Parts: sequence; C-alpha cells; structure tokens
Amino acid sequence: MVDRFRFQNVAIVGIGLIGSSIALALRAGGFKGPIAIGDRNGDALRVASEIGLGTSYHVSAAKAVAGADMVILAVPVGSMQATGRAIAPSLQADAIVTDVGSVKGSVIEAMAGSLPQSARFVAGHPIAGSEQSGPRAGFATLFAKRWCIITPTPETDQDALDVVADMWRGFGSHIEMMDAERHDLVLSITSHLPHLIAYNLVRTASDMESVAESEVIKFSAGGFRDFTRLAASDPTMWRDVFLNNRVAVLESLGRFSEDLAILQRAIRWGDGDTLYEIFERTRTVRTDVVGAGQDTAAPDFGRPRE
Amino acid sequence: MVDRFRFQNVAIVGIGLIGSSIALALRAGGFKGPIAIGDRNGDALRVASEIGLGTSYHVSAAKAVAGADMVILAVPVGSMQATGRAIAPSLQADAIVTDVGSVKGSVIEAMAGSLPQSARFVAGHPIAGSEQSGPRAGFATLFAKRWCIITPTPETDQDALDVVADMWRGFGSHIEMMDAERHDLVLSITSHLPHLIAYNLVRTASDMESVAESEVIKFSAGGFRDFTRLAASDPTMWRDVFLNNRVAVLESLGRFSEDLAILQRAIRWGDGDTLYEIFERTRTVRTDVVGAGQDTAAPDFGRPRE
Ligand SMILES: NC(=O)c1ccc[n+]([C@@H]2O[C@H](COP(=O)([O-])OP(=O)(O)OC[C@H]3O[C@@H](n4cnc5c(N)ncnc54)[C@H](OP(=O)(O)O)[C@@H]3O)[C@@H](O)[C@H]2O)c1
Ligand SMILES: NC(=O)c1ccc[n+]([C@@H]2O[C@H](COP(=O)([O-])OP(=O)(O)OC[C@H]3O[C@@H](n4cnc5c(N)ncnc54)[C@H](OP(=O)(O)O)[C@@H]3O)[C@@H](O)[C@H]2O)c1
Repeated sequence: MVDRFRFQNVAIVGIGLIGSSIALALRAGGFKGPIAIGDRNGDALRVASEIGLGTSYHVSAAKAVAGADMVILAVPVGSMQATGRAIAPSLQADAIVTDVGSVKGSVIEAMAGSLPQSARFVAGHPIAGSEQSGPRAGFATLFAKRWCIITPTPETDQDALDVVADMWRGFGSHIEMMDAERHDLVLSITSHLPHLIAYNLVRTASDMESVAESEVIKFSAGGFRDFTRLAASDPTMWRDVFLNNRVAVLESLGRFSEDLAILQRAIRWGDGDTLYEIFERTRTVRTDVVGAGQDTAAPDFGRPRE
Repeated sequence: MVDRFRFQNVAIVGIGLIGSSIALALRAGGFKGPIAIGDRNGDALRVASEIGLGTSYHVSAAKAVAGADMVILAVPVGSMQATGRAIAPSLQADAIVTDVGSVKGSVIEAMAGSLPQSARFVAGHPIAGSEQSGPRAGFATLFAKRWCIITPTPETDQDALDVVADMWRGFGSHIEMMDAERHDLVLSITSHLPHLIAYNLVRTASDMESVAESEVIKFSAGGFRDFTRLAASDPTMWRDVFLNNRVAVLESLGRFSEDLAILQRAIRWGDGDTLYEIFERTRTVRTDVVGAGQDTAAPDFGRPRE
C-alpha cells in the first residue's frame, strides 16, 4: 500500500467524537508519529490521555499545533474562527491545516480571516458520525466506506489538498470534491434539515400536555424512537450548524413545509390516492440508500439482533 | 408457566409482517393446534405455505375462520370492515375476534357494524413492527419486550379480553389498557406523525431540483438515512392509518408545525440561545427511551457492528 499519511507530526484540536475517531484511525492506519491533542475542555483532555489517544495534551490550542505539519481542527463550526486565531501565531510555516466542520462556506471564510498566508488550508467534511459526543465516543472505523467531502477554493494548495485527501483514503473514506456553496446546499437537505426535524418532533411530543411524556417513551417503538437518536446530538454542534448555514437550511425547510401542507390537506380531505402515491414513491429511496452501502437492509428492531 | 394460549383453533386473516410474526410467535410459544391462514393475496398465501406458517391456507377469509375459536385480523385498517363482513356468516358462535390495527376507534366502529352479536371482539395493537412487509418479514420475537395496547369498550367481554391479553403475554409483550380515543391520540404522536414526517422529508429531498437524487443518497449517512427507513413502510397500511386517524394526526401535526415555525424564526434571526435551549432539552428524551428498553444505546453506524 502507498503511504496514505504524508506528514510526520499531527495536531488535533477538539477531541470529541470526530477528533478522537481521527486519532484512532491514524493509529489503526499505521501512523507512528506524534499526535498532539488540544482541547479547551479539561475533562475531555483527561479522558483522551487516559485512553491514550495522543502523545501530548494541551489546553492551549497554540501549544498543541506548535511543530505540527498536519493540523486538524475538530471543534464546533462556531469555534473555528477563534481556534484559527489562537493557533495562527504558533503555526509552523507551510503547515497543512484542515477541518471537519459540518458547514463549509463559513469555515472557509473564518480561516481566510484568521490563518497566516503561509498556512495551507484545506476544508473537509467527513459524512459520518453518530449522536454521541466526547472523546470516549471515537471509533477507528467511523470513516470507513463513508464519503469525505473536500471543498477546495481557487486559493487551495493542490499539494496540500492531495495530502488531506490521501489521509481520508487512509481512513477508508471515498473522496468527493465540490465547492463550499454546493456542499452547504446538499448537506442542508441530507443532514441539517433531518436533524432540525428530529429535534422539533421530539420537542413537540415532549410538550403535548394531552399526552404524558412517559407514554411517549413507552410507545416510542412505533416510529418516534428513530427521531430521538438524532435529537440526542450535541446541542452546541447543531446550534453552530444552523447559525452558519442559514440560507440553505431555510430554503430546504421552506420546501419541506410546502410539501407537508399538501399531505395535511390530503389527510383533511380524505384524499387516499394522493397519500398512496407519495408513500409509494419514497419506498425506492430506501432501496437506493441500502444499495449505495449507506445503511443496512436489516430491519431495526431497536435491540441487539437475536 | 401457565398456559398463555387458551384456545384450540386459530385463524389469522392477513399474513403480512404482523400476521406472520403472530403465527411464528404462537409456535415458538408452544401452541400446537391448527392455524388457518386467510389472505386475499395469492402470492402471500403461497409464500406462507412454503414457509409453513400455518396448517391450512385460504383465499377466502370466510373459509379461514370457520371452526376457529380465536380469529386474529391482521389486514390494513381500511380493510377491517370488509373483512368483518366477509367472516361474519361463518364465524363460530362465541369465537373471540381480535385485531392488530394501528388505529383503534375506526376499527371498533367497523367491527360493531359488521360482526354478529355473538362474536366477542377485543381491539388490540402491538407497538412493534418494522418497515418491511409481507409474510417473509415475520419474526417470532417481534413482540417480545414490546407493549401491546388493548382498547376495551363497555361492550367488551371480560373473559375474551383476558384470553387475548394472555396471548400477547405469551408472545413476551407487556399489556397496557386504554380507551380507543386515547390510543389514537397517543399513537398519533409516537407513531403516525413520525411516519408522516419521514415520508415528507424523503419526498422533499427527492424533489429538490437543485440537488440530484444521487447526491441525496450518497451523503445520506449525515442523518437523512434514518428517515428513509420509516418512509419505506407499506403505503397501503399508512394511507389507511392517516385516513382513519384524521383528527388526532391533524392536531399533532398542527403542534409540530407551530413548533417548527419557532425554530425557523430562531435560525432566520440568528437566535442561538433559543436553538441551544431546545436542542439541549430533547437530549434527555433519548436517555429515557433507552432506559425504558425501547431502543439500544449503541450508536447506529448504518452497518453491522464490527
Ligand atoms: N458529530 C458528528 O456526527 C459530526 C460528523 C461530521 C462532522 N462533524 C463536525 O466535527 C466537529 C466536531 O464535532 P464533534 O461531534 O466531534 O464534537 P464534540 O464531541 O462535541 O467535541 C468538540 C470538542 O471541541 C472542544 N472545543 C470547542 N471549542 C473549542 C475551542 N475554541 N478550542 C478548543 N477546543 C474547543 C469542545 O470543548 P467544550 O466541551 O469545552 O466545548 C469539545 O471537547 C464539528 O465541527 C462538527 O460540525 C461532526
Ligand atoms: N407493520 C407494522 O409495523 C405494524 C405494527 C403494528 C400494527 N400494524 C397493523 O397490522 C396490520 C397489518 O400490517 P402488516 O404490516 O402486517 O401488513 P402487510 O405486511 O402489508 O400485509 C397485509 C396483508 O393483508 C392482506 N389483505 C389486505 N386486505 C385484505 C382483505 N380484505 N382480506 C384478506 N386479506 C387482505 C394483504 O393483501 P394485499 O397485498 O392483496 O393487499 C397483505 O397480504 C395493519 O392493520 C397495520 O396497521 C402494523
């Protein structure tokens, strides 16, 4: 195998689900060099050091990145600018800086305004995750067989882009390139809106004064429980996503609401044909998702398979 | 163990996911008597007989129920009335008739209008299922550790109710009693609305002319794929649910839309505190669902666990 990891000295800032999964995937892929870990959260740092995710641990992001030729930013999107500013003075010249933020337009802007000219920034986003967060949630194969989107700009250094793409390939990911605007639109519908809708449904159910929350929980196997998973995702991460991808999310949400009004009307007027026609069409999408290897075909009974 | 199956001769009309799971659960629980299977769908009948789900197979529901002292109706909610009418002439006097329909008010009404006075009808609904349908989807332990709701009316025969409840206990289910109106309200929020929302989101995503369907599929691991599962459910079954639980579903949907408008406004105006506060609250619901044994805590990476 060609060497996927063409760097010697890694720094990861933000050691949550994604940061810790990267640390584990680097080791699983044979990376032998130092991994400096930075996080402002002392508890997360302590856990990371207990698990042995890295070789050094720093509350100061600036200290973590000193000497690194590959810097990976895995903090929430809204913390990217502050992190960029914090590391700028101590970044090694020519260091590659990449990120994993779920929104790309705003992160590219934040980095352009905070990193020194000499730093080579490549914006990336692994389409893999879970509702869990923190350094204990990490998983060496989290990115395997999943897509990683890289969103280059005209300023992006081609060599740095290749190094970052190879790193993700080393984690088992497929690479897709698109511009940041398109990324933010596509993800608004495949990820951001689904989370918003899940949060909203869980909230509506909790607030129904006519139905006790205990009943909602008890009978959640009828479909509701699928939403509680997404709605358990990290609130800081998701607040930042919505604040930073406002235009695309509002556009997707507008479409969703229009379509919902049609279903509402069909229910109100007893229009079974319209309901059937819509429900029939959505079936094939599931088959496609499974066919593309993005989910298992096995039904989910909400418990370990017997 | 006491004998949970206090009947000798079973008929199951409708041999889809639920009907076939009941047949398997009866055998797994030690029921030795005949199981007559009725279904209007010849393919389903043939598959059922290939798997050996029953002891006799009938295109005519009337023939299936002749001689049975326990009749289980597992057809879509909209087919209940026609099925009731079809079996009425050949029902054994004193036979217990029960159903598994996802809506209870309309089924109780349909049965009152079609079954003979001598039949003892008990309305039930197992809160367990999956997006798959047909006789091959059945699973002997589908109902284990799940709730089965029974919705008695003042006319319900107490002895018949006990026999039906014991049958579900024999499948490993917990029993909950409530009236049909309450059932239909509770389920509108824990099951019917989640399915409606899932269908709608998948449809919106498929219809976005600015994002290719192939992109939606490719990047579905970001959250969208969780919705495709519910949206792959049987269109006939779900059309019937919405047509038969209109009032409660429209009420729950109204709440959902109001709440969504608040999130929309918070995103438009950049109100991060409101977003954070709502996202933080919904987290605990997930913990409760897992705590109640209604889902696994393990994160779902969309593939068999390594
Ligand atoms: N979770 C997913 O499914 C997923 C998938 C793909 C991409 N992403 C992206 O990956 C990034 C990280 O997400 P995650 O789920 O791994 O997060 P996480 O588990 O919540 O961890 C984030 C860590 O970063 C720390 N942090 C926040 N601001 C910081 C700052 N200014 N300087 C140093 N450390 C800081 C946090 O500390 P505090 O606790 O003190 O805030 C926390 O320890 C986000 O940009 C997210 O959009 C997430
Ligand atoms: N699936 C779930 O998750 C779930 C959970 C709890 C309760 N339920 C309830 O259980 C019932 C059955 O659902 P399911 O998912 O098992 O359905 P399914 O897999 O779609 O199977 C239903 C079967 O009933 C047959 N049928 C329809 N109308 C009939 C009639 N008038 N006479 C005889 N057979 C008829 C159908 O034949 P055709 O193909 O010709 O229509 C089909 O073979 C529904 O009332 C549903 O609300 C479902």
